[in-house]
Amino acid sequence: MKFRNPPVNSLSLEFLTEFVISLEKLENDKTFRGVILTSDLPGIFSAGLDLREMYGRNPAHYAEFWKAVQELWLRLYMSKLMLVSAINGASPAGGCLIALTSDYRIMADNPKYIIGLNESLLGIIAPFWLKDTFVNTIGHRAAERALQLGMLFPPAEALKVGVVDEVVPEDQIHSKARSVMAQWLAIPDHSRQLTKSMMRKATADKLIKQREADIQNVVSFISQDSIQKSLHVYLKKLKQKRG
Amino acid sequence: MKFRNPPVNSLSLEFLTEFVISLEKLENDKTFRGVILTSDLPGIFSAGLDLREMYGRNPAHYAEFWKAVQELWLRLYMSKLMLVSAINGASPAGGCLIALTSDYRIMADNPKYIIGLNESLLGIIAPFWLKDTFVNTIGHRAAERALQLGMLFPPAEALKVGVVDEVVPEDQIHSKARSVMAQWLAIPDHSRQLTKSMMRKATADKLIKQREADIQNVVSFISQDSIQKSLHVYLKKLKQKRG
Amino acid sequence: MKFRNPPVNSLSLEFLTEFVISLEKLENDKTFRGVILTSDLPGIFSAGLDLREMYGRNPAHYAEFWKAVQELWLRLYMSKLMLVSAINGASPAGGCLIALTSDYRIMADNPKYIIGLNESLLGIIAPFWLKDTFVNTIGHRAAERALQLGMLFPPAEALKVGVVDEVVPEDQIHSKARSVMAQWLAIPDHSRQLTKSMMRKATADKLIKQREADIQNVVSFISQDSIQKSLHVYLKKLKQKRG
Repeated sequence: MKFRNPPVNSLSLEFLTEFVISLEKLENDKTFRGVILTSDLPGIFSAGLDLREMYGRNPAHYAEFWKAVQELWLRLYMSKLMLVSAINGASPAGGCLIALTSDYRIMADNPKYIIGLNESLLGIIAPFWLKDTFVNTIGHRAAERALQLGMLFPPAEALKVGVVDEVVPEDQIHSKARSVMAQWLAIPDHSRQLTKSMMRKATADKLIKQREADIQNVVSFISQDSIQKSLHVYLKKLKQKRG
Repeated sequence: MKFRNPPVNSLSLEFLTEFVISLEKLENDKTFRGVILTSDLPGIFSAGLDLREMYGRNPAHYAEFWKAVQELWLRLYMSKLMLVSAINGASPAGGCLIALTSDYRIMADNPKYIIGLNESLLGIIAPFWLKDTFVNTIGHRAAERALQLGMLFPPAEALKVGVVDEVVPEDQIHSKARSVMAQWLAIPDHSRQLTKSMMRKATADKLIKQREADIQNVVSFISQDSIQKSLHVYLKKLKQKRG
Repeated sequence: MKFRNPPVNSLSLEFLTEFVISLEKLENDKTFRGVILTSDLPGIFSAGLDLREMYGRNPAHYAEFWKAVQELWLRLYMSKLMLVSAINGASPAGGCLIALTSDYRIMADNPKYIIGLNESLLGIIAPFWLKDTFVNTIGHRAAERALQLGMLFPPAEALKVGVVDEVVPEDQIHSKARSVMAQWLAIPDHSRQLTKSMMRKATADKLIKQREADIQNVVSFISQDSIQKSLHVYLKKLKQKRG
């Protein structure tokens, strides 16, 4: 599955909805057992949530958007498919979310690419379920530090802290992803799927049990004047940067 | 305590029962403060559960067997005794279970020896409480990967990922185990035991609270035709291999 | 904030009370956003709880003292301030507690300094909430081993196991602490504080929900003759050592 939502594969409401529908189709099509997630755009895996969906809109829109974000995470994190992220570009915030839900993460060895949960740099915070995913992946202490500082890791550091499993030369990322996929699919599907579910179910259930409360929290948080102002400054800076 | 159940120290119902009785005796004998678990057979620590107990028998037998497996884990994991595993041979699945419940794991530096939870390779899955033990030992991410792939680690890798605490030349494994035992027994027993219990109680309680449900899950899982078939293929292969 | 309670910055009831009051003032003074915790005494960060508060007194005193210990931990662990520990001396038990609650730990590179939770060496045990803090910091397996053995780590080992985040030459510890503080305070306060709270709240709530029970446990534990005897031996040894 190749992401293509120019210029930076932002996770807009439309893109999230299409993403979830595509995943659902693949889940239900028994000829698919695994998916490689990668980008079709140069230098960017995914820039994360489209912040324009969280700025200057009404609460109903924020709620709809956040429900779609939750849905993507739930679908990816609990997918029966074997998921490999072939991270061939920058992958901040929501881009990192996608990578963290995969079963295996391969990153292209390009020091310009960075990955991490940098929400705190924008004056916002990661949701608790993304925090839980991060803790599951890199441990409590490393997650606490990285989340507070909004750390973005270049490939070598991402590997060291455990945000990714492997770093390979950029031109080998897709062949590597295919060979990893083959290795994982050599395991009987039902054993792999039951094991994956056993590992992740408690984390997913935490969100499922309080999904509506999480939406309300996010809506009231981003509706605050101070947060809207932060997002305004950030979006303006982004616009200038891109010309 | 030296395991001797030729040819490969399989954990049969009989062996499990004797193991638990021996442990109980040692627990209640105040002259014993610690036990070194090792194998009396060359090249094998324990091959794990005797799969013949899980194939072609009736549900009542599966239930009895699984209860004995749970009992062994509970006794070992919450033992007041200081337990050292001197892993002097291969230690897949149930063999790894024994090692994981110990307070300290020493492995002989022989690349032919491997250790890990390879249930997924056989088309089955590790129980949740063994998964919890594994997560406690090597962390969530490493456990997720190793369990899904059914990874078996040679000594150097087992040390790196944290499945064992130390790797020593094969002829030094027993002297090393004794010196580790002496080091741990220098701590006042009540402090060591209360600390151990504090660290492990929540994990053990999870099983205690749903022991019967876990038995029913396992019984219905292994009673499935597809699982019985997998076990048949595996047992046949094993028989041919051993001549 | 520089600790000065000669000779070894023991956490006496009086010192704990003053510490908590000072922290509360700083929390409520909006001109303070972070605090560097360090010692004003040579060679010692803090020797930990003043064991004289736990020996030869009545249950009411033990209860009052333990409540103050809990209060310090709760205040430090959930502080809105950014806390850096500049560990410029030995830091056993309660000294390590203070360090573990900080957001970042820097240790002076002096092999005479050690840090860790050595309660088991004294015949006592760490409380569950300090154990939880330790697990959050260095992981379950490392905590299990270190707590049972009462391990005290010199700087290089403390860094390796993750008890501290950084080791620097002794004369650079304060400048380093200031530059780390500046780095963390570059993050918007509300993002940093909300993230910190999200990471730590579950651990703090565990104590808050059973604070009185924890006090009763400790009081009955240390009131035992055998524990009082252990503390007597230890305090006597300490007195002789100090002349």
